[in-house]
Amino acid sequence: MGLLEFIKDYFLGFWDYETPKVMVVKNKKLGVIYRGVQFLVITYFIWYVFISQKAYQDSETRPESSVYTKMKGTALLGDHILDMVEYVRPSEGGDVISTILRREVTHNQRQGTCAEHFTVPSANCSKDADCISREVNFDGNGQRTGRCVPYYNQTFKTCEIQTWCPIEDYAAIWEPALAEAINFTVYIKNAIHFPKFKVLRGNIKPNKRNGQKYLNKCHYNEKKHPYCPIFRLGYIAEQAREKFSELCRTGGVIGVFINWKCDLDLDPSECTPTYSFRRLDLRKNLPSSGYNFRFAKYYSKDGEEFRTLIKAFGIRLDVIVHGHAGRFSIIPTIINTVTAMTSVGICSIICDWIMLTFIDKNDIYSDRKYDDDSKVPSPSQLLTVPTEFTISYGSNHSDLSEGVAL
Amino acid sequence: MGLLEFIKDYFLGFWDYETPKVMVVKNKKLGVIYRGVQFLVITYFIWYVFISQKAYQDSETRPESSVYTKMKGTALLGDHILDMVEYVRPSEGGDVISTILRREVTHNQRQGTCAEHFTVPSANCSKDADCISREVNFDGNGQRTGRCVPYYNQTFKTCEIQTWCPIEDYAAIWEPALAEAINFTVYIKNAIHFPKFKVLRGNIKPNKRNGQKYLNKCHYNEKKHPYCPIFRLGYIAEQAREKFSELCRTGGVIGVFINWKCDLDLDPSECTPTYSFRRLDLRKNLPSSGYNFRFAKYYSKDGEEFRTLIKAFGIRLDVIVHGHAGRFSIIPTIINTVTAMTSVGICSIICDWIMLTFIDKNDIYSDRKYDDDSKVPSPSQLLTVPTEFTISYGSNHSDLSEGVAL
Amino acid sequence: MGLLEFIKDYFLGFWDYETPKVMVVKNKKLGVIYRGVQFLVITYFIWYVFISQKAYQDSETRPESSVYTKMKGTALLGDHILDMVEYVRPSEGGDVISTILRREVTHNQRQGTCAEHFTVPSANCSKDADCISREVNFDGNGQRTGRCVPYYNQTFKTCEIQTWCPIEDYAAIWEPALAEAINFTVYIKNAIHFPKFKVLRGNIKPNKRNGQKYLNKCHYNEKKHPYCPIFRLGYIAEQAREKFSELCRTGGVIGVFINWKCDLDLDPSECTPTYSFRRLDLRKNLPSSGYNFRFAKYYSKDGEEFRTLIKAFGIRLDVIVHGHAGRFSIIPTIINTVTAMTSVGICSIICDWIMLTFIDKNDIYSDRKYDDDSKVPSPSQLLTVPTEFTISYGSNHSDLSEGVAL
Repeated sequence: MGLLEFIKDYFLGFWDYETPKVMVVKNKKLGVIYRGVQFLVITYFIWYVFISQKAYQDSETRPESSVYTKMKGTALLGDHILDMVEYVRPSEGGDVISTILRREVTHNQRQGTCAEHFTVPSANCSKDADCISREVNFDGNGQRTGRCVPYYNQTFKTCEIQTWCPIEDYAAIWEPALAEAINFTVYIKNAIHFPKFKVLRGNIKPNKRNGQKYLNKCHYNEKKHPYCPIFRLGYIAEQAREKFSELCRTGGVIGVFINWKCDLDLDPSECTPTYSFRRLDLRKNLPSSGYNFRFAKYYSKDGEEFRTLIKAFGIRLDVIVHGHAGRFSIIPTIINTVTAMTSVGICSIICDWIMLTFIDKNDIYSDRKYDDDSKVPSPSQLLTVPTEFTISYGSNHSDLSEGVAL
Repeated sequence: MGLLEFIKDYFLGFWDYETPKVMVVKNKKLGVIYRGVQFLVITYFIWYVFISQKAYQDSETRPESSVYTKMKGTALLGDHILDMVEYVRPSEGGDVISTILRREVTHNQRQGTCAEHFTVPSANCSKDADCISREVNFDGNGQRTGRCVPYYNQTFKTCEIQTWCPIEDYAAIWEPALAEAINFTVYIKNAIHFPKFKVLRGNIKPNKRNGQKYLNKCHYNEKKHPYCPIFRLGYIAEQAREKFSELCRTGGVIGVFINWKCDLDLDPSECTPTYSFRRLDLRKNLPSSGYNFRFAKYYSKDGEEFRTLIKAFGIRLDVIVHGHAGRFSIIPTIINTVTAMTSVGICSIICDWIMLTFIDKNDIYSDRKYDDDSKVPSPSQLLTVPTEFTISYGSNHSDLSEGVAL
Repeated sequence: MGLLEFIKDYFLGFWDYETPKVMVVKNKKLGVIYRGVQFLVITYFIWYVFISQKAYQDSETRPESSVYTKMKGTALLGDHILDMVEYVRPSEGGDVISTILRREVTHNQRQGTCAEHFTVPSANCSKDADCISREVNFDGNGQRTGRCVPYYNQTFKTCEIQTWCPIEDYAAIWEPALAEAINFTVYIKNAIHFPKFKVLRGNIKPNKRNGQKYLNKCHYNEKKHPYCPIFRLGYIAEQAREKFSELCRTGGVIGVFINWKCDLDLDPSECTPTYSFRRLDLRKNLPSSGYNFRFAKYYSKDGEEFRTLIKAFGIRLDVIVHGHAGRFSIIPTIINTVTAMTSVGICSIICDWIMLTFIDKNDIYSDRKYDDDSKVPSPSQLLTVPTEFTISYGSNHSDLSEGVAL
């Protein structure tokens, strides 16, 4: 047949069905291995891929999230009452909110000149010559004036500097920690949206009846109040396995994780968040640890500005939202099914290797599996043979060669 | 042949080409099913995977994004002018910016003692004995002094507390909403960077000629000004399907979504963002809803500190950037093509099952498809036969058995 | 055989092993192509997928990250000392921190009436009639009173407006840039957590001995101090290829990228971050560029509020953390191995196509590859043949037809 006829046949044969020829080997060893491997593969796909990994679902892992936080509670500091306006920063209530637990306050700082702190390198002096004018020591608090002055009301002297006076290191007043802060509450409102599935969920149970009253009273508790979005700082610290007293001393950053795992094939009401808490800043064997920041309140008197400098130690809550939603979809289902089926093919590869290597009859099997063309006569010889005769032998040319041998 | 020869043959045969033997079934039913399934699979891959999902592209979905926001506009409140410095918080202009629409202001609060609000549980009293000293009611505003005092200039009495006086619940002045805020504008500058593709894009059209003038005049509008990054609050609320008046009353959180879909096989100038707006905080049938926060301005007079407490209702804009970029890459193209080709194999599985189950001639087909070895002689018999003779019969041992039968 | 027996055989044959029959073609051209394609596929998988892409690992790409930033340094402005409390905003030290490099300060602004700036459209006037009362020009600074007043102590006149007076455009004092800011340092503490692998890492080397002393002295430098998390602003600007002087003029947003690439099969101490710096806001040929924001300090005198308005130009540092961790896992290893093996199948498809199209002997090959059933006798004929006879010939019906022909 020439290429032309081949093409003709090809188009005629378009509607033929082609299926690979298969050799059946009645060998129990092989059979068991074969079925065993098949079983493993199928089990893996059914159990792990489909049931455990829900491969039949289309999924979305990064929902749009909105977090709104608000703190509540009052604490007594001496005869001074602190309310959330004073101890919460920033006030806007985003997904990062920090509360002050302890303050080191420096009152009435004014721009001026005063003595540098004695711990600053080369700050100690006995005469003006020891202080280079206009020098700025990086670890110091300001620019040196070149004078050597008594260290506040001490006997020894340090270089005078131009800065906010008095300097914090000397004048800061250490306030006691806000012990009541353990009962402060933070209200965390979180709404997520899965764009792909058009699903919108919130962490507050819609409750027409006495919702507001409930939210005023409840405190979150995994067991008792899983749907109450109001958390006691004490509870958060406890869940993060931190001592509150230690947090008051050094401060710290705690992550509040809101985890949404939504199987949208179930009822949407099943799609509720779980909360977990973990300290985010490393602290063990770390030279610098904890969380603190400085800010100031600025005042003016007779046109002169002065400030109260506050070094605040506290808890910073980072609200981190993880979301995962899945819903049945035909395309991943098909894809994974096909993958599963094709993966079964791996069994043959393994078993063939075993069969053709270890089994005593491997030469027979290989002969039967592999149809070798080394004995095929050249096309010329073929043409001498009447076509119908050839065809009567079907497509097996090894028979043909035999016929010729007769 | 022994294992040794087998190994020899194996190395000799390394350059042989092996291809599975295929049985052709001239059966229209099967053919149609076969081609039908093939067609479906191929269509799915070409249309969905390649054209719709652009599987020939390498993609990146999490660009580095930088957002800079700035608000503009002035509003008149009585005879007091509010500019953005007063109604925008935080001032740094990051990806979360909130604007105040309505304020409840409590002027001149001072640390001191005053009457608790009458709605606070157990705050109402007739004599001092009704008020436990040093008690702090969580819903209250401060610590009780133990005295029972007249409620401001009312006839009835409540327990006296130590706190910022006067208390907000009593003294707050409700200011009218900033109606003009509907014309405030927010300028959102967004730059994204796809590290993998080294592509840097911004949402502002570089425009040497009169760019600055354009940015001073234009307001974003999907139709008319798609490249103007300045948004009217009214437009945003409208796009989010919110009543601005209601937002003024309760406040709310609105997401500004900047979506970048970049096909880098096209001209980079095609890579422009689209904007969408959606309210992020849930509000329907929710007990607590809306967005508000408290902050204070601190003043000092004769060394005594006092403050103006402001409860602010407003809009918080969360700018959320989604990005996706794709560019042709050879590796995903190959992978997906291979997957497509192997997936076509699934057709045989289906059709074989049909053929061997439903077609009346299935026993013939199965006989021809499956070459059963149950009739193969034992190796011992084989060895009696001269090897060359065996080989002269090619690899078909069923012929051999026949030869012996003669 | 009837369907019944077929089913019986099926169950008996459950433990049979089935392997496709393969035709061996002793054709060097084909063999070379075949092995060549195989080589390419296998190379791709071994080199790219397994070695380069580490496909044998289970990976996690979105760690939980916590960033804490703190700035340090003092700058002299005239005879006024600026410390970090004044030039850093926000003070809480989150992952976005901005430092002021230059200020335009408007002192003692009070609510009142004063002349509009002359550049504002329609602000210039000669008589009151030119100014519409209660009109608010969007680009203006306030609401017009309807009077036409001298422009501060100039000869020409502009419309009077109600606003914070004096207006910034007129009264702002341009302060010189903080040249010393180039030596300011920012301390960036970053801790990440890979939940899947339960791995917690920080960017500070735990160092019991003199860790604190080291952190007080060191400045980050890729070569000399890769483990020092303290960065000079000058170094950051330089790494981002920005002129510090230009940043002082216009301000800018710079991204600090912390990249974690952790191969958890190695020692955890290998898992250390690398830092990179890039300017995030586009600036070339952009009408508006740079980074600035406004804020005010509020004071009170005799019950009257006044403020100092500050327009601040500076650097905003956005700390962006990228993380990737991988650890050996059996499932991805198996999956990718299977994929690799099945992908080798692609070679046959290519070679078959070549063989059946280009090779001169393609008709012989096709005959031998494709076992055509067109010449199979009808089932009726089959039934005339004794079953055992049929079986004695094995399953090869082309032999059978031959037998009949004898």
